[in-house]
Amino acid sequence: MTTVTTRVEPLRWGRGLEVLDQRQLPWRQAWIEVRDAAHAVHLIRALAVRGAPLLGITAAYALALEALRTRDLPRLRIAAGRLAAARPTAVNLARAVHQVMAAVEAARPQQRASAAVQAAITLHGLDAVACQRIGELGARLFRGEKVSILTHCNTGALATGGIGTALGVVRTLHAQGRLGRVFACEARPVLQGARLTVWECQQDDLPVTLLPDHAAATLLASGQVDGVVLGADRIAADGAVANKLGTYPLAVLAARHGVPLVSAAPLSTFDLACPDGRSIPIEQRDGEEVRRLGRHRVVDPSVPVFNPAFDVTPPELVSAIVCERGIVRPVTRDTVREAAG
Amino acid sequence: MTTVTTRVEPLRWGRGLEVLDQRQLPWRQAWIEVRDAAHAVHLIRALAVRGAPLLGITAAYALALEALRTRDLPRLRIAAGRLAAARPTAVNLARAVHQVMAAVEAARPQQRASAAVQAAITLHGLDAVACQRIGELGARLFRGEKVSILTHCNTGALATGGIGTALGVVRTLHAQGRLGRVFACEARPVLQGARLTVWECQQDDLPVTLLPDHAAATLLASGQVDGVVLGADRIAADGAVANKLGTYPLAVLAARHGVPLVSAAPLSTFDLACPDGRSIPIEQRDGEEVRRLGRHRVVDPSVPVFNPAFDVTPPELVSAIVCERGIVRPVTRDTVREAAG
Repeated sequence: MTTVTTRVEPLRWGRGLEVLDQRQLPWRQAWIEVRDAAHAVHLIRALAVRGAPLLGITAAYALALEALRTRDLPRLRIAAGRLAAARPTAVNLARAVHQVMAAVEAARPQQRASAAVQAAITLHGLDAVACQRIGELGARLFRGEKVSILTHCNTGALATGGIGTALGVVRTLHAQGRLGRVFACEARPVLQGARLTVWECQQDDLPVTLLPDHAAATLLASGQVDGVVLGADRIAADGAVANKLGTYPLAVLAARHGVPLVSAAPLSTFDLACPDGRSIPIEQRDGEEVRRLGRHRVVDPSVPVFNPAFDVTPPELVSAIVCERGIVRPVTRDTVREAAG
Repeated sequence: MTTVTTRVEPLRWGRGLEVLDQRQLPWRQAWIEVRDAAHAVHLIRALAVRGAPLLGITAAYALALEALRTRDLPRLRIAAGRLAAARPTAVNLARAVHQVMAAVEAARPQQRASAAVQAAITLHGLDAVACQRIGELGARLFRGEKVSILTHCNTGALATGGIGTALGVVRTLHAQGRLGRVFACEARPVLQGARLTVWECQQDDLPVTLLPDHAAATLLASGQVDGVVLGADRIAADGAVANKLGTYPLAVLAARHGVPLVSAAPLSTFDLACPDGRSIPIEQRDGEEVRRLGRHRVVDPSVPVFNPAFDVTPPELVSAIVCERGIVRPVTRDTVREAAG
């Protein structure tokens, strides 16, 4: 088993924490030095950093930054609480913060900082390893000599601590010489497909075709797609998958056209405490994301907008979930508990 | 039966032909004086004028402009051929041109111009009447005191010679005091929902909510929509509906959630010579529409784009077609022939 690589790097930990400002991609590669936890919360809410696993890693390092400044547990607990609540849907965020905070609480006062840093680095490294394993397992799901994948939003290096989840599967197919083409939905409103996934594919020379979100239906009907591979922001105990808005319609259409739909997600995305899809909190984002095209106003601010950031796909529409521990198939309450319990 | 009105006007015929430049909406209301048929072809291809019925009306007037300049039949036939082929999918375009050309061919040389003008004006007037009737019949399909409609792209006054087709149904419900809300998908890539439908609704004080295309799935699942009402660019003999990209996925999702999907279209949209959906030519448009946001480049020109302008919805997913002659339901080869034959 060879390691699959990428040229894309979304975050650096060294003398401090730096994140690539994903709002400015693909136009500029601008790095932001994160000052403290409050700054990280701001950057997460503004989508400078996004992607469920990367949200967890970023918040973990941000809490480590705080621990380097103070050993005061009540202050660290407040920072942890704010980081965990920065965005509601991706469970990786709160989980990572809780893991770092648990390491801090278990350490002696003078070792709190190093415990936090070590916990964040470990979490980052484990996510990179999980991506490799997910890529390898996910690629095995597709047998053909040339495999074409439809994906949505960004699930690559810009969303994780490694080569990505769904895009990790795509990268692995490419490394095996088996990638036909990756089709990327643009993912309105903030274009994380058009801006981020296409850019990532170009960095690593993956053959990519862009399409408007609604064109996925025609593409699936055309028979050109071997699999729809997506990430997840939270997987409930029954296997319902909350993911970027647009996943649910893609799942309905994939099922209609007999194309398997695979959710690629590390174990940190599973939330067995969440009984089903209805229990997953879905973030509603500012209508200005839709009323504007970039900075250009299209629609009057007085017009109401329906702008959920995520949707929920029921387990019966998910052909398989690929996590670092294996392939969950069929997706049921039992198989999910077995994988993540 | 009262006449339903609108403040929106997309075209003026008087001393010549003027069209509202729909590329500049909602920012500016700029009128373009159409010089000749070649100019009209350019404006149609560039989407300055769009919407299946309005394409027919515009091309009809443009051919009348030519007939005012020359009585030479071969030259008029060449102009007619170019107008008819300006865009491939909407059958209204070629049909309107053929109707005007037939009037020209039947007239004596010195009456060719007036015959062409009269044919274009008649076609325009009949479309306005058809819209009124479609609005009235379509509104009857919904029984509730307050009816909420999901629509897509623009099917209003900016797409027709009257109050619109699907948006004519919405306007009629509003005039009857029964419109709860109209939900408008933004319709990427050129945002004919966000730019045109929202603007039209604001002109006529219709309560409108905008949503990203992919959010329609969540909206339909939420139970807030009583009906999906859309236009059509061409209806084949079996009842398959070619319409703006995004119609097919909306139809699949509406069926899944038990929401009726209604196609509102004048008889000029039916093409009994086209046996089924596979026979409808689907225009593929320039990838730059997707690679750019307005004038702003998002994606490198080297990246391939899949950008069909339309998709095809099979008849079994269309609950009813409303045309000026009545309601076609169920949608089958027989009922379509009965309505349009």
